[in-house]
Amino acid sequence: MSLTDATRPTDVSLNTDLYELTMAQGFWESGLVDAEACFTVFFRDAPFDGGYAIACGTGQIADLVENFRYTDEDIAYLGSIQAPGGGALFKPAFLEWLGGFAMDVDVWAVPEGQVVFPREPLVRVQGPMAACQLIETALLNLVNFQTLVATKTARVVQAAEGHAVSDFGLRRAQGPDGGLAVARASYVGGASSTSNCLAGKIYGIPVFGTHAHSWVMAFPSELEAFRAFARTSPKNCVLLVDTYDVHQGVANAITVAKEMEAAGERLAAVRIDSGDLAKLSKFARRAFDEAGLPYVRVSASNDLDEYTIQSLFAQGAPIDSFGVGTKLATCDPQPSLGGVYKLSAVRKAGESSWRPTMKLSEVAYKRTIPGIQQVARFYDEAGCPVGDVIYDETMPQATPSAAVDVMDAETTYDFAGYECQDLLVPVVRGGVRAGEAPTLEESKRACKDALMHLDPAVRRFLNPQVYPVGIEAELSRLRQRLVREERTAQRA
Amino acid sequence: MSLTDATRPTDVSLNTDLYELTMAQGFWESGLVDAEACFTVFFRDAPFDGGYAIACGTGQIADLVENFRYTDEDIAYLGSIQAPGGGALFKPAFLEWLGGFAMDVDVWAVPEGQVVFPREPLVRVQGPMAACQLIETALLNLVNFQTLVATKTARVVQAAEGHAVSDFGLRRAQGPDGGLAVARASYVGGASSTSNCLAGKIYGIPVFGTHAHSWVMAFPSELEAFRAFARTSPKNCVLLVDTYDVHQGVANAITVAKEMEAAGERLAAVRIDSGDLAKLSKFARRAFDEAGLPYVRVSASNDLDEYTIQSLFAQGAPIDSFGVGTKLATCDPQPSLGGVYKLSAVRKAGESSWRPTMKLSEVAYKRTIPGIQQVARFYDEAGCPVGDVIYDETMPQATPSAAVDVMDAETTYDFAGYECQDLLVPVVRGGVRAGEAPTLEESKRACKDALMHLDPAVRRFLNPQVYPVGIEAELSRLRQRLVREERTAQRA
Repeated sequence: MSLTDATRPTDVSLNTDLYELTMAQGFWESGLVDAEACFTVFFRDAPFDGGYAIACGTGQIADLVENFRYTDEDIAYLGSIQAPGGGALFKPAFLEWLGGFAMDVDVWAVPEGQVVFPREPLVRVQGPMAACQLIETALLNLVNFQTLVATKTARVVQAAEGHAVSDFGLRRAQGPDGGLAVARASYVGGASSTSNCLAGKIYGIPVFGTHAHSWVMAFPSELEAFRAFARTSPKNCVLLVDTYDVHQGVANAITVAKEMEAAGERLAAVRIDSGDLAKLSKFARRAFDEAGLPYVRVSASNDLDEYTIQSLFAQGAPIDSFGVGTKLATCDPQPSLGGVYKLSAVRKAGESSWRPTMKLSEVAYKRTIPGIQQVARFYDEAGCPVGDVIYDETMPQATPSAAVDVMDAETTYDFAGYECQDLLVPVVRGGVRAGEAPTLEESKRACKDALMHLDPAVRRFLNPQVYPVGIEAELSRLRQRLVREERTAQRA
Repeated sequence: MSLTDATRPTDVSLNTDLYELTMAQGFWESGLVDAEACFTVFFRDAPFDGGYAIACGTGQIADLVENFRYTDEDIAYLGSIQAPGGGALFKPAFLEWLGGFAMDVDVWAVPEGQVVFPREPLVRVQGPMAACQLIETALLNLVNFQTLVATKTARVVQAAEGHAVSDFGLRRAQGPDGGLAVARASYVGGASSTSNCLAGKIYGIPVFGTHAHSWVMAFPSELEAFRAFARTSPKNCVLLVDTYDVHQGVANAITVAKEMEAAGERLAAVRIDSGDLAKLSKFARRAFDEAGLPYVRVSASNDLDEYTIQSLFAQGAPIDSFGVGTKLATCDPQPSLGGVYKLSAVRKAGESSWRPTMKLSEVAYKRTIPGIQQVARFYDEAGCPVGDVIYDETMPQATPSAAVDVMDAETTYDFAGYECQDLLVPVVRGGVRAGEAPTLEESKRACKDALMHLDPAVRRFLNPQVYPVGIEAELSRLRQRLVREERTAQRA
């Protein structure tokens, strides 16, 4: 796999919130620099009011870890930062330590393309406290957005019912990296191609594109513009028919399609980018059929998302493929996943057992899950997942099949008798990648397969059923005990 | 200015939609490669249902243009792309031409930090047709998002009523470039600092940050954690008090503040990141005041935006500074500006006069403005803008002070007697930067000044007054004539 911007050696370590560094200095000074930590990445709600998310970005974690180091230039910059109260923010001895720093962590992650659910760990990082802290921001920056885009795309592709979806979102993305992340994650999530050439070059994703309104406007007439495009791109000819008037545009496209036929070529499709796509696509389909051009396909774009595509098909729109831009690249109407990175256990240097930790908060909703978390996914005989259970790998007495619902402690699950597989797999061991990540093609297939096996009630857009996610009974008891102990400590 | 990711030579030219390249090949083959084009970047609606936007990203256009070239590696990749109908998509002779390509364009743009309004040109690009086409996507990718973020920030800063706002959004941004764009544009829009170290290093933006919940959880107790932080960062000490319980957290912070006082240091602030920020900030303020610590400030974060901040102050919350993350970095609830790039005039090689062009569309809303556009901004005696008029620089008879409203052709404007200044300034001439761009500090001051002079009725969040934007009378007549002519041509 090529390096991405997320993993360029010179940038990767400073692509961080300052507080990771002030905390690292604090751990270094407080004798906790080599204490071991276990952090967990998770999100609290499935995006888009949906029932699931698609893990993405996790395939690039190993690149991030392996390239994580501070250059002399980075150290010089950090040395120049002044504390608000005066003086240098960072001590020279800490900066010297940072200059020799290696991201010596172990990472487990859900493979790209897998379905994931709220509260369960998407990534688990273990290693020296300061190292785990220093990777937080870059890691969230990597997996938060890609998981969101892959999920959005899966929904759009579901609505498109087997018709091709192409990512057209680059111009509305947050810079080149944003565009690359959109192209990469949308490909995993089910898009067939992207308009983004850089993504084509770096990731090998199929690229697609023909012409814009400006092409038509550059010529004295639409017909001349179409003829010129058919001459220059006979093997990639999709004509955009809405620059002036779609009815006239389709008539001109038919003229050119006939001329192409006479020259032994074929017009591939027309694209409609404005107006009433349902009506206009029906008009275009009928016009091409009546003209004896049933092979000319109708493509649509213009602020599409899963809901507009669903509505178009509900109206019987004969659209063959979709270009989806803005709402894919920005994940409208929910532009952030809200994935967080929380400390779930600590082990002091030399100690053998972990101390589980949790954040309490005023709001129960923000309470975290303690422990060295793994997810057991249970499957029925048809290979369909029936429930996930979060358990602590280090608890010898844990039996993942017996669980309490992650949100509602009164609901219990018993998955005894079902096949079960751990969801998190090692991606980094001691700062070095644990084998090659799956290719994007493999992740794309994994996503398609995972969605095919997911209960349609969980997949649907409106009021999806909640997929069962439990906390293993023993871990749940530990969690309740920690809440009680903390409350008692506070009253003391 | 340092190079940003948007302008790295190796990536910049392929950071594009494929159709720009298929069109460039078409222009190259159709004898239009050296025809001159004039393109205009504009947006159709002010974001966030607001009355204005803040221009941003335009200060980096010169970098983009100067670094725009195709490497051998880029050319090799393009040569490998197959057409859907078979064969190579690009012809070897075109790729050879592309290998020697230079982005030989002229660019005018609204300086960063200026207020801008719907329909008026934010950027104007003139030059060879293919060159203008090839820069489209990268240019939109550069200015769309930064303009949106600067606007969002200006709104948040307005709501904060002079209290400091810091960008905390990196972890929810679209990769490193997204984070950099957020930090840069939010600084122009009025933020005081960012948590993003890379933005600090590259752009010199002040960085800010202290500690996270994990710091507290890493220690056996909150009090020990606070003490350790005060020891390691006495000059940058903001304690996060909501890991377990804000009341206890504030009590512990008071203990540590007193210990710091005894050691000759001062606790700068506490931060509250969850719960009812209005109630909890009042509680914290009272507690510190009663403890004789009136200098300890109260900072708040947690999904803030202009509306929550406005509501907090309406409730009398004594909050001194805000960390704004997710909703700044994603521009929730409107994650895209929808800026477009439209051909507005064409001139064939050797001809002296331009042919104005416009896109009609089924929908009047999507009709563009033709011509070589400039914006005259009219000011009253206090230096407050009273209206903008879009006019065609090449029309000798144009008088910008007489105009027709850009959306409602029945409303006319007469700005005769007002001072007037052109909004678009040259940033690139013949592919080379036209002087140095303003510094970020200058752009930040320009933004503050522009907002101070903007009518509060246009600035308000709820039902803002529409700022007058007109089309100069002569240009408006041309536009109406083009609509009539096109309609007649279609009926023919």
